[in-house]
Amino acid sequence: METLNIFGSTGSIGKNALDVIRKNKKDFKVLGLSTNTNIEALISQVKEFSPSYICVADEESAKKIKHLGKKIKLFKGQSGLCEFASVGCDVSLMAISGISALKPLMVNIEHAKKIALANKESIVTAGGFVLTKAKRFKTKIFPVDSEINALYQLFALQKDFSKVYLTASGGALFNYRLKDLSRVSAKTVLTHPTWDMGKRITVDSATLVNKGFEIVEAHYFFNLPYENIGVVIHRESRVHAFVEFKDKTLFACMYPPDMRIPISFALSYPGRMNALKTCNFNSGFSLSFEPLKEKQFPLLGIVLEAAKRCDNALSVLNGCDETAVEYFLNKKIKFTDIHKAMGYIFSHYKQAKVKTLDDVFYWDNWGRVKTKEYLRAL
Amino acid sequence: METLNIFGSTGSIGKNALDVIRKNKKDFKVLGLSTNTNIEALISQVKEFSPSYICVADEESAKKIKHLGKKIKLFKGQSGLCEFASVGCDVSLMAISGISALKPLMVNIEHAKKIALANKESIVTAGGFVLTKAKRFKTKIFPVDSEINALYQLFALQKDFSKVYLTASGGALFNYRLKDLSRVSAKTVLTHPTWDMGKRITVDSATLVNKGFEIVEAHYFFNLPYENIGVVIHRESRVHAFVEFKDKTLFACMYPPDMRIPISFALSYPGRMNALKTCNFNSGFSLSFEPLKEKQFPLLGIVLEAAKRCDNALSVLNGCDETAVEYFLNKKIKFTDIHKAMGYIFSHYKQAKVKTLDDVFYWDNWGRVKTKEYLRAL
Repeated sequence: METLNIFGSTGSIGKNALDVIRKNKKDFKVLGLSTNTNIEALISQVKEFSPSYICVADEESAKKIKHLGKKIKLFKGQSGLCEFASVGCDVSLMAISGISALKPLMVNIEHAKKIALANKESIVTAGGFVLTKAKRFKTKIFPVDSEINALYQLFALQKDFSKVYLTASGGALFNYRLKDLSRVSAKTVLTHPTWDMGKRITVDSATLVNKGFEIVEAHYFFNLPYENIGVVIHRESRVHAFVEFKDKTLFACMYPPDMRIPISFALSYPGRMNALKTCNFNSGFSLSFEPLKEKQFPLLGIVLEAAKRCDNALSVLNGCDETAVEYFLNKKIKFTDIHKAMGYIFSHYKQAKVKTLDDVFYWDNWGRVKTKEYLRAL
Repeated sequence: METLNIFGSTGSIGKNALDVIRKNKKDFKVLGLSTNTNIEALISQVKEFSPSYICVADEESAKKIKHLGKKIKLFKGQSGLCEFASVGCDVSLMAISGISALKPLMVNIEHAKKIALANKESIVTAGGFVLTKAKRFKTKIFPVDSEINALYQLFALQKDFSKVYLTASGGALFNYRLKDLSRVSAKTVLTHPTWDMGKRITVDSATLVNKGFEIVEAHYFFNLPYENIGVVIHRESRVHAFVEFKDKTLFACMYPPDMRIPISFALSYPGRMNALKTCNFNSGFSLSFEPLKEKQFPLLGIVLEAAKRCDNALSVLNGCDETAVEYFLNKKIKFTDIHKAMGYIFSHYKQAKVKTLDDVFYWDNWGRVKTKEYLRAL
């Protein structure tokens, strides 16, 4: 039985992970849980899984949860999160969204034997720092993101692929014309055709910023040059990635669009859990693939250009995207204003080297501040 | 540069192989070629590839080819074929169709360093003998058959799959109702939806006898119990096989339906040749998968039941199928008479152990004789 800490247990990934654990109680003991704001959900999880550690966002939340028992060690706030990340465990699941995951992740690398990583911003903005530290501490990092998880499964067997392809569902707005995008509501954007995920990633799926971030992840995890990472539109989200050999033979990694599957892989590899789903090919299905029309998704091009610069651009753009998406979800701006903000920030940021983790946070914050200024002035 | 002998160079596989060699002249030197009846095609191949050895079916054919040069060593007839199989080479391609390949294959195992095997009857009737001998002589055998080739590629990486699936196009008659099958012509059956192959295998694709034989191949090549080998209908023939993990994740092996691709793999593995085809995902495509309706293909059931008996049934049925298909192609019987013959022979053969290679030939021949008797009496 392995001990497990979950960072962000009340979000979409956290809940899915606990469902996986619920079905594999003999294999895992939940040691700690953390939430940002969803105290009610955390209380219910604590009652079910009896963790020894809890981490919440602030004093107010801590008060609401104190009654659960004296045996539980309670952490609070940003510093508490890093203390929680210092609790040794066999496996941890990093499912906090956004750049907030980066600090606890860097701490956790020193204390967890392996980490299932469901946060892409930490790799996008600080992939080199994260993976170098993981290597130094011999902490295995398993990507949970379905496309990167699929590549991980394929690369676990062999390395000499000449190219890889990530699939993209195209998100909720795939069939919209560019000129109609300014009018779409948050509700429309959040209706993802195949995946049930957190809000920011669902919006990022519609702009394909998410796919750009995954390309950066693939670059770091598998040491791939950017020109060897392609994207193919695949509306059904059943194939998550392809690897291509020199002779153009493809291997595809397939599973239904259910995050419990890559989560269970990341938690149990090199073993595998029993399937959660019924059998393949019990009923018929079709899969479609089409080339990506780059003009339809200008933000993917911006993220890729930023990635190739190897400077502070990805940190700046991550700050910009997180901010603009939040504004959009709060109905402060139109969907197309996310595009405008990203375009503006990318053409106006000051290029700089990112030498330390502090630089990452500095430039991410710079991106946030400038984006807010820009969006308020719109 | 590797030396290459091709057994059956004027058939569909042989011609495709020579096209692969034509595009990779620096890597292979054609040492020997053999044909059964197509002397004109062989003469043209000899002029292009200048082999040192030729093998033809009989004295008459030998006369037609003598003028090509004194430097060429000429073999003829069945005994000549086994002498040709004794010529040492780096790689040989066994592309003779039917059980005729079995004797030269057994000889060739002693003399070739590796064998690209494009004959399934030798494995179906004598898989144990062939693979045991190959192991003893340390001769690598690479399956050319696209589905088994795809599995070979996947198994080259890992072995712990819980199940495998072979895809089946369903052949030319997939959309026919059973009651209309008696009227279909050889021409209709030979119009395969995706593959351009030899005549017998194309008819066997329509009855799914071919898929049954591939299941036997998969059983021998990868040591799989029959219950772990499934079949899924996939009309586009772009995915050739799937492997399934315990958690139901699938890996698929994909390439366009062009035999040059598995041939080039089998000839060059563990290396890989450059692609013959343009890029994947340059244009869109769809793939469909549906469960096999077993009632639609009764001969698949017969072949599988025969395989599980581990007796002389597969040898008998191979003789029966080769004979019945030949009769059908020569317009002597209706398509549905193939079904009748296979059903009759399978319920009337005398069960016996197959202890030697002679037993294989004896029971194959027994199947032929009894099938002819049965078909003549129809």
